[in-house]
Amino acid sequence: MAMVELYDTTLRDGAQSEGISFSVVDKLHITQKLDELGASYVEGGWPGSNPKDAEFFEKVKDLSLKHARVVVFGSTRRRGIKAEEDKNLTMLVEAGVKAATIVGKGSAPQVTRVLKTTLEENLAMIADSVKYLKSKGLTVFLDSEHFFDGYKSDHQYALKTLEAAAGAGADCLVLCDTNGGALPEEITRAVKAAAKATGVPLGIHVHNDGGLAVANTLAAVRAGVTQVQGTINGYGERCGNANLCAVIPALKLKMGIDCVTDEQLARLTEVSRFVSEAANLVPGPFDPYVGTSAFSHKAGYHLDGITKWPDAYQHIDPDKVGNRQRTVVSDQSGKRNIIAKAKELGVDIEADARETQELLQRIKLLESRGFQYDNAEASFELLLHRARPEYRQPFELVDFMVVVESRRRPSTRKGEEEMLSEAMVKVKVGKEVIHTAAEGDGPVNALDRALRKALLQYYPSLSQVKLTDYKVRILEESTGTESQVRVLIESSDGVDEWRTVGGSTNIIEASWLALADGLEYWLLKHGG
Amino acid sequence: MAMVELYDTTLRDGAQSEGISFSVVDKLHITQKLDELGASYVEGGWPGSNPKDAEFFEKVKDLSLKHARVVVFGSTRRRGIKAEEDKNLTMLVEAGVKAATIVGKGSAPQVTRVLKTTLEENLAMIADSVKYLKSKGLTVFLDSEHFFDGYKSDHQYALKTLEAAAGAGADCLVLCDTNGGALPEEITRAVKAAAKATGVPLGIHVHNDGGLAVANTLAAVRAGVTQVQGTINGYGERCGNANLCAVIPALKLKMGIDCVTDEQLARLTEVSRFVSEAANLVPGPFDPYVGTSAFSHKAGYHLDGITKWPDAYQHIDPDKVGNRQRTVVSDQSGKRNIIAKAKELGVDIEADARETQELLQRIKLLESRGFQYDNAEASFELLLHRARPEYRQPFELVDFMVVVESRRRPSTRKGEEEMLSEAMVKVKVGKEVIHTAAEGDGPVNALDRALRKALLQYYPSLSQVKLTDYKVRILEESTGTESQVRVLIESSDGVDEWRTVGGSTNIIEASWLALADGLEYWLLKHGG
Repeated sequence: MAMVELYDTTLRDGAQSEGISFSVVDKLHITQKLDELGASYVEGGWPGSNPKDAEFFEKVKDLSLKHARVVVFGSTRRRGIKAEEDKNLTMLVEAGVKAATIVGKGSAPQVTRVLKTTLEENLAMIADSVKYLKSKGLTVFLDSEHFFDGYKSDHQYALKTLEAAAGAGADCLVLCDTNGGALPEEITRAVKAAAKATGVPLGIHVHNDGGLAVANTLAAVRAGVTQVQGTINGYGERCGNANLCAVIPALKLKMGIDCVTDEQLARLTEVSRFVSEAANLVPGPFDPYVGTSAFSHKAGYHLDGITKWPDAYQHIDPDKVGNRQRTVVSDQSGKRNIIAKAKELGVDIEADARETQELLQRIKLLESRGFQYDNAEASFELLLHRARPEYRQPFELVDFMVVVESRRRPSTRKGEEEMLSEAMVKVKVGKEVIHTAAEGDGPVNALDRALRKALLQYYPSLSQVKLTDYKVRILEESTGTESQVRVLIESSDGVDEWRTVGGSTNIIEASWLALADGLEYWLLKHGG
Repeated sequence: MAMVELYDTTLRDGAQSEGISFSVVDKLHITQKLDELGASYVEGGWPGSNPKDAEFFEKVKDLSLKHARVVVFGSTRRRGIKAEEDKNLTMLVEAGVKAATIVGKGSAPQVTRVLKTTLEENLAMIADSVKYLKSKGLTVFLDSEHFFDGYKSDHQYALKTLEAAAGAGADCLVLCDTNGGALPEEITRAVKAAAKATGVPLGIHVHNDGGLAVANTLAAVRAGVTQVQGTINGYGERCGNANLCAVIPALKLKMGIDCVTDEQLARLTEVSRFVSEAANLVPGPFDPYVGTSAFSHKAGYHLDGITKWPDAYQHIDPDKVGNRQRTVVSDQSGKRNIIAKAKELGVDIEADARETQELLQRIKLLESRGFQYDNAEASFELLLHRARPEYRQPFELVDFMVVVESRRRPSTRKGEEEMLSEAMVKVKVGKEVIHTAAEGDGPVNALDRALRKALLQYYPSLSQVKLTDYKVRILEESTGTESQVRVLIESSDGVDEWRTVGGSTNIIEASWLALADGLEYWLLKHGG
């Protein structure tokens, strides 16, 4: 099959995702990563819509990119003026890069209802804008906005907009499913019609509103497009864009299209997590190819299968995309899982040793108290270490007390209360006992603060560790507030993240155990 | 196009998702919701692999379902024994439901490498197991595991496994892409071959490892399958199953297949959020159709478009799936929503009354503190009543104090502590102030007991009300234990169930508010 060029729009369309706001530094780092991943084009931003983007185009000139070309984004000229008088278009030239993508309407109803101009003027807007940018020596791509919807409502006009751009010298016509609702067969049909109507290379840019963005992208490639637009992790407006982290391995591993090298593909998981970090979004655990659960096995039936044949329950070798197979230790797992998991974590335990028997007993007991290790590998790894006679705990929990009080102030109106949360903790480090206390925004926060206060004098580097997530789950709903409680805590030192668990009938005790594990795990990894 | 039956496996395959562990009560509630959504089949679990599932099949008999049939899941008999001697198969019959799905291998290499038996014996295992279950009067579906991979490696054998089941009387042959790596065109080809080889109705069950599960499901429907398997929110092993929340609207709105009614479709978002709540997973904001961002607009360019034409940047009317259009800058419940909701609950409020204005202000304030009413209608209804001047609260919360203490007993071994949880509460009923205290298994249980103790002398019938579920969600993960906390409580009097919410930065205060609402709501409905 033909060559395919990857065009990444994480920095422009991806940044339209709810909750994302990249800094200029983030954008520069991401550009570097995308270059390493093998993207042909990196769309850097829309200087006309975002003042930060002008700064990006200034600074990106200092990056030395091996492969990727930076592209500036804008729209066709406004109606009724000349292209060279349109500030939006002149800004594209001023951005100082060699390629520009402009969005133009590919759908008749969008022209009349939203652009509020005539169908003829829209054709002129497209042709004039392409011609102007070509005259300045740029490579020019047309994003044909709403092309697929336009093709459905008036296919002749939709094709005319492409012909206008082609006639003006556009280098690639990018067909957009802007509203993300097309079905794969609609994509195939319209791409084939576009190929027939114009002799220019075609591209595809689809949104994921129907959950079909990856499939629609692949369908377009099969129908003949050679430029594939998308974003890392599928970030983008509404439900997002086509997820390049799923598109790239599908093209390379399943359709035999060498859009990246083997080495570049093996960095996919790393790039995905890097971008989610920059976006300040939790990486999607269930994301195809790159998610932490993508090659994780929980069902006993599947675990049994993969011990016999590693590929029994995986569609590709996870190494190819830089991910790995994991075993999920769940309440249904036996000795086999636990030994497999220990091996995976690099802790040697022997199947028949007395310590292993005791460990299994302990895990069973803890599971019956509500501990669950699916999502708390760090606590599980601590259990393995604690089972070894040579392990020395960096600290030991002794006592704690928490007081939460709500008093209605006599002077205030109904409904206004004064809240107080305090914790006292007693912790042992070596032979020393530290007894201290702290206030907090709630009982768990007060405990967390008191525990850190106690430990920081011995382990000052613990100040890097932050709590990033806290979850509570009640295990047997039928008994309401008397039930077993499971607390899951996620901690981070800015580089790594790890999860710990605590179980008890008492939510405060469960939190206390999970908090302590979160700190002990970091000390285990970084030296107590 | 032909009729399509929806087969939901959230409770079995969905529960294989990393981090999901449904209680029996959760499973019963989800079954009810799936029935209301219009699922034809609800796969309840695998009694052979999970002791909790046996309890589910016992209790599900008491639900009165309108439309859905509950299905039990298991596997074909073990090699070398008779079907009637296989405990796994007899358990399916003992589950006491009318339909069973059994998984059998549809791929030659899986038979030899994982099952470690002969290709002939696998055919016998399938045929014998189907025959046995049919002889017990059950409707029998075969999940042909690894069928699509099997079709690629040895298509003749893959089709033979289907013929074995068809010959034994299977009611539907469900073709599985177990490893989730197939491309849509591979699905189409293999489904057509299966249809040609057997005269039995076909089903489709695919995983999302390639990000193509929705597309693959739709491709199978176009190729002729009539049973569609999937899960709510796409939960499931590894990257999940086909997401019914994307498949259902695509079938109905885009392919014209009436698999659910308009009214059922309009509940899709509600069902999605209900299940994510039960799974204790944050609902995916970017999920197609049902995500909170699915119809949210952020780009200025798009916001401008939708003011001119609401459909300019949306592929369907969000009302059709019970979702709504949002602009990302302002994220508050509109007045129209609240009035519609009040009407639905039978509480009359006037759009222009001063009380309504005050109520809107109050809801905004509470939402900013973490309250959310999607899943807590009882608390919402109480808010409406409290806004009416004639409403008299049956009791009023004044003060509380909670102490949780853990002391290591000097006489005991390491790791054994004495836990104490006590609560003091002050409550006003009419002009009386009750000041009392109680112990509990944890701080929330102690509060619950103290509050009941205070109220029971005035409202003895409150003894019927029991807490049945308690959930905690942290709202801004990035700030860890200092974040806003939302507590959701479910109460029951044995006849009805209702949900209440409390929000605070303090987990104890949030619980206190939700507990009190749970009791007040019952008194409102049954006379204080």
